[in-house]
Amino acid sequence: MEININAVASPANETFSADWRTFESAHRLRSVTLLTDSVETTWDDARISSYHFLWLRDNCPCSQCVHPATREQMFEVVDAPENLVAGSVSLDVTGALNVQWSDGHRSLYEAGWLRSHAYDETSRSERAAQLRSVRPWDSKLVIPTFDYASVMSSDRVLLDWLLAARDVGLTLLTGMPETGKALETVATRISFIRESNFGMTFKVRTKVEAVDSNAYTALELPAHTDLPTRELQPGLQFLHCLINDATGGESTFVDGFAIAAALRANSPEDFRLLCEHPVEFWNKAPQSDYRSYAPVIGLDSRGEVSEIRLANWLRAPFNLPASEMGAFYRAYRHFSALTRDSRFIVSHRLEAGQMWCFDNRRTMHARKAFDQASGKRFLRGCYMDRDELLSRILVLQRNDPGRSIRAA
Amino acid sequence: MEININAVASPANETFSADWRTFESAHRLRSVTLLTDSVETTWDDARISSYHFLWLRDNCPCSQCVHPATREQMFEVVDAPENLVAGSVSLDVTGALNVQWSDGHRSLYEAGWLRSHAYDETSRSERAAQLRSVRPWDSKLVIPTFDYASVMSSDRVLLDWLLAARDVGLTLLTGMPETGKALETVATRISFIRESNFGMTFKVRTKVEAVDSNAYTALELPAHTDLPTRELQPGLQFLHCLINDATGGESTFVDGFAIAAALRANSPEDFRLLCEHPVEFWNKAPQSDYRSYAPVIGLDSRGEVSEIRLANWLRAPFNLPASEMGAFYRAYRHFSALTRDSRFIVSHRLEAGQMWCFDNRRTMHARKAFDQASGKRFLRGCYMDRDELLSRILVLQRNDPGRSIRAA
Repeated sequence: MEININAVASPANETFSADWRTFESAHRLRSVTLLTDSVETTWDDARISSYHFLWLRDNCPCSQCVHPATREQMFEVVDAPENLVAGSVSLDVTGALNVQWSDGHRSLYEAGWLRSHAYDETSRSERAAQLRSVRPWDSKLVIPTFDYASVMSSDRVLLDWLLAARDVGLTLLTGMPETGKALETVATRISFIRESNFGMTFKVRTKVEAVDSNAYTALELPAHTDLPTRELQPGLQFLHCLINDATGGESTFVDGFAIAAALRANSPEDFRLLCEHPVEFWNKAPQSDYRSYAPVIGLDSRGEVSEIRLANWLRAPFNLPASEMGAFYRAYRHFSALTRDSRFIVSHRLEAGQMWCFDNRRTMHARKAFDQASGKRFLRGCYMDRDELLSRILVLQRNDPGRSIRAA
Repeated sequence: MEININAVASPANETFSADWRTFESAHRLRSVTLLTDSVETTWDDARISSYHFLWLRDNCPCSQCVHPATREQMFEVVDAPENLVAGSVSLDVTGALNVQWSDGHRSLYEAGWLRSHAYDETSRSERAAQLRSVRPWDSKLVIPTFDYASVMSSDRVLLDWLLAARDVGLTLLTGMPETGKALETVATRISFIRESNFGMTFKVRTKVEAVDSNAYTALELPAHTDLPTRELQPGLQFLHCLINDATGGESTFVDGFAIAAALRANSPEDFRLLCEHPVEFWNKAPQSDYRSYAPVIGLDSRGEVSEIRLANWLRAPFNLPASEMGAFYRAYRHFSALTRDSRFIVSHRLEAGQMWCFDNRRTMHARKAFDQASGKRFLRGCYMDRDELLSRILVLQRNDPGRSIRAA
């Protein structure tokens, strides 16, 4: 891998090398004041941000503290003296914050970086708001659709596709080659594929001995997420249709986050039960025995719904206190009924040359039963983690001048 | 894949086909009583287990409800009538529970299965106790060591190795070939490898342009877990030494769970802060931008420590309320100091032909600096998820008569 560091980021000087991104800001520091345990700064829009001494020392970007090539920290904050204080602070001619430490070390912080990482309440709220990008949908969704050739040739189209996958959680690619490795080609345009116990890729067609999974039968499959039996469900699922001559087998989708929101609004007690009680999911097969233990509705540390985990046919018997069992069944049946509610369902018959790419931890998918005798049906699929999707988006945005990171 | 279903499990009759395991029990049902919403059973040891009607209906193992080949459920409990009740219950000649439902369906439950899945408080406590297998350690640990050839040829030795990896979290393999694909050979003896942004396998040697990670420098690395920047850190890490002619570079390990327990006992406030405040970890590289957001000490739903997440050089600036920042630095520095405490540290110089296999989410590893001029040092590594480890253990135990699943 040939890498020209200077071409990727251009810090104003070598002291600002702790990141691969640049941090522009419309705001300048107006003044700095030394307090007993922190530095208080006032910005030109009157925002006040305080920085604890240990926080500043910890984040010193100088080449003694941060490796110039990896841009990763070498300094460990446990090595800072117990009584470390800033002896003096000042703003230099570029507007950067200059700190002279009591142990002799000196640090220089670019204003844009400080603004981007400030932890006053206003700055923290702004950043938290930027993380909320989910766009809920129902049966009226116009499925975001992209052309395979454009995704392959244009970084801008690729980025639009990935943002739709992140924020809507359901996308369709058209114009795919109907044979060969088109699935791998388009998946690795994003990043590497996540292998599972079904292989690096999997084929969806009926098997004579369908012992692995009900997915490999011609049965109707109720709305589900794939691999709830794993600690981390795959973030993205790709399903590429090579042949679809069979009668039936339509794909249907529901937005699990929208259903969870409806449940939360109308039946908060049912919502609570599905968030608080972990459920076991088992993949019971001759050569594997996967078990996970997690709630149907996962919440992040801010209390927002971050994950749906459900495949009815992979659930273990509920293992709850007897006093909760009746109520939990009420909640579970309520949620299941919502996944069948036509208000939420989007339906589309996937044709040869089309591919689904959806958020497997949010968008529940189902399949109508199909008639094996009426014709062939052959899909290939694979998975990718949310980490790869989000990383690819950030790198594409880094290189896209119109969408770079800009502190408020 | 050739699969002979009958060879894997032998249910007493086709109604008991909802699992690949068999459920023996030393106990028999003495009596059953029909209550208004559940069936109360009394066992021959006087234990009383109640089963809610919906729970029983949900878990009916008959061939209409469970696919005989996949052993996965086809019935959906949302389809049970709102007013479903058991019309009559009885024990049959084999001791199985027979239920006649108000809608005409009939279900038969093997006593061993019922005992194994009972959710009375005693049964739930017994099962929870079986899950606690962690064996904490300190500097006096005798590292569990296994011979490569034996692991490759014996399922029993393989199982012992994997149980040590699960419960101790640090193991050494000796007698490995010093070249070639020995790493992949022994890893895939367990299951498939988990790819990462560093590839399917990675090489640890210094690079001229070490832009990816401090791991590829000759620097000392503080105690850490690998890939804390991902939502799910890899469960197992393998490090196979092919050449170690350099001076320095010893591997050291600490049991992160033991350190967390010490912190919990001596400084509960520091422990709480590290459990409750998520920290961001960033992998900042030219071609990737991975970010995760999780606490340094992860707890499971029972409040037990389930994960350590820490690599000092991959931490983002702390993003906490200003009022907590000083206390959080005290907690973080305290934890870091414990990782350097000789009471906890196990040290071993990995020689050519040896391989570490350790729990990457528990056992923190560190590397002393080494002298690049003194000789070559070349390690190959890879990752695997905890899911694969646990699944392989369960399948090996399933086939090992002395260690099969047996209800209390």
